Amino acid sequence: MSAGLRNVRLLVAYDGTDFRGFAASDGVRTVMGELSAALERVVRRPVELSGAGRTDAGVHGWGQVVSGPIPPDTDLDRLQRSLNGLCSSDVAVRSVEWAEDDFDARFSAAGRSYRYDVWNDAASNPLRSRFTWHVAGALDLDAMNWGARYLLGQHDFSSFCRRPKPSPGMDEPSLVRRVDVAHWHRPFDDEPSLVRFEVTATAFCHQMVRSFVGTLVDVGLGRLDCDAIPEILAAHDRNKAGRVAPPTGLVLWHVDYEGQRWDA
Amino acid sequence: MSAGLRNVRLLVAYDGTDFRGFAASDGVRTVMGELSAALERVVRRPVELSGAGRTDAGVHGWGQVVSGPIPPDTDLDRLQRSLNGLCSSDVAVRSVEWAEDDFDARFSAAGRSYRYDVWNDAASNPLRSRFTWHVAGALDLDAMNWGARYLLGQHDFSSFCRRPKPSPGMDEPSLVRRVDVAHWHRPFDDEPSLVRFEVTATAFCHQMVRSFVGTLVDVGLGRLDCDAIPEILAAHDRNKAGRVAPPTGLVLWHVDYEGQRWDA
Repeated sequence: MSAGLRNVRLLVAYDGTDFRGFAASDGVRTVMGELSAALERVVRRPVELSGAGRTDAGVHGWGQVVSGPIPPDTDLDRLQRSLNGLCSSDVAVRSVEWAEDDFDARFSAAGRSYRYDVWNDAASNPLRSRFTWHVAGALDLDAMNWGARYLLGQHDFSSFCRRPKPSPGMDEPSLVRRVDVAHWHRPFDDEPSLVRFEVTATAFCHQMVRSFVGTLVDVGLGRLDCDAIPEILAAHDRNKAGRVAPPTGLVLWHVDYEGQRWDA
Repeated sequence: MSAGLRNVRLLVAYDGTDFRGFAASDGVRTVMGELSAALERVVRRPVELSGAGRTDAGVHGWGQVVSGPIPPDTDLDRLQRSLNGLCSSDVAVRSVEWAEDDFDARFSAAGRSYRYDVWNDAASNPLRSRFTWHVAGALDLDAMNWGARYLLGQHDFSSFCRRPKPSPGMDEPSLVRRVDVAHWHRPFDDEPSLVRFEVTATAFCHQMVRSFVGTLVDVGLGRLDCDAIPEILAAHDRNKAGRVAPPTGLVLWHVDYEGQRWDA
């Protein structure tokens, strides 16, 4: 923390459709880029921001958390209103609060929860198409949940991740993660075609949730046996898993900091 | 019914954002216009369609029903697939089936149900902005439900409707309707900011649901006493009611044909 600054954390939601992902990147529209520019305008200085989850292009956020140091005399209610006024309508700062000096949205996070929604009906749903993947064939949720149980626990998820580009002189990064929740259900009685995957892990590798979803949807369609999942996991080979589901259905739902439900 | 034709009914969903309403109208993009054009291409003749609810520009449909006469040798599964292929992605034909000769989507309807969703939080919600009205001030749902109860039953709803343009030589149309359900609730435990109005009536006059919502939201914000609703009703004066809520939050949810839940 730079001298004379105080750590703030923001809870951020966004419709990822028109963003090239969350993480700032030169020359393209990103959520972090938009937030940084707005924050810099309000506090009149550049702010080094940290974000809890690097969501891909087209992936949405509901409980994304961002932190960074700002001048300590900043009025947080005004800051929130100013940010929401400056950001475009596909980003919203849901809340703003002071954080401990050592809080870092990325490195302090103990777990991330994602939701992935599938619209499972012969016809698509125009009211949900921005936030679902349309799968026309009937899905067997029992088989999908049977398959999902194999993902629980600590594994090397190489088969379900896009391998990061090697950095010269660096060891290959570990793709070992611990998955605590992986479950399919139909959340709404009056919309039985909406099928939701809830997944929680310490952290996720690149494309891991979408790879889980693509593979388990193949299980649900009967294209893949649910008992093939352990072999896919053990192979440590990206080519063994099913397809990668499209980003539309995916939302970073919640980030957990030592069990504290801070967005309530 | 023209000789040699058979009556079909379609269950139709649409995202109304980019339509100038449901009813066909020359020179503008409407849901019925898009459906008619697609149907005409598939059955190779013009089809006179009837629709259950004339939703306004920007209003959405989930359980809209459309009917009309088509050649009796039409394969309905293929028809559905063709229509969904021809219509743009903001319209979907959820199902297609043969109907009785005397069925008319508009005149056979016994009741219509609408939903109106409000996002009630200081910050807007980018994941729901297309389908909600953002109201920042805290809403008192008890007061809104108290006010909504006065709308139940048969009334002349002139105070809550845009009066239709008089037609030369015609009597002024009645604005008497019977409201069977009018209720606010929070449907999702994990999204307490989502507030939903459910309303069912034999039929609705123009802007009636949005006028109910605008007035009851004023009640919820403390700008209007809930016990003022009976006076507003009795006044038969459009200027007495509150504002008209924006179309974004409104969805034609279900059309009832003599108690038959046909879209299940």
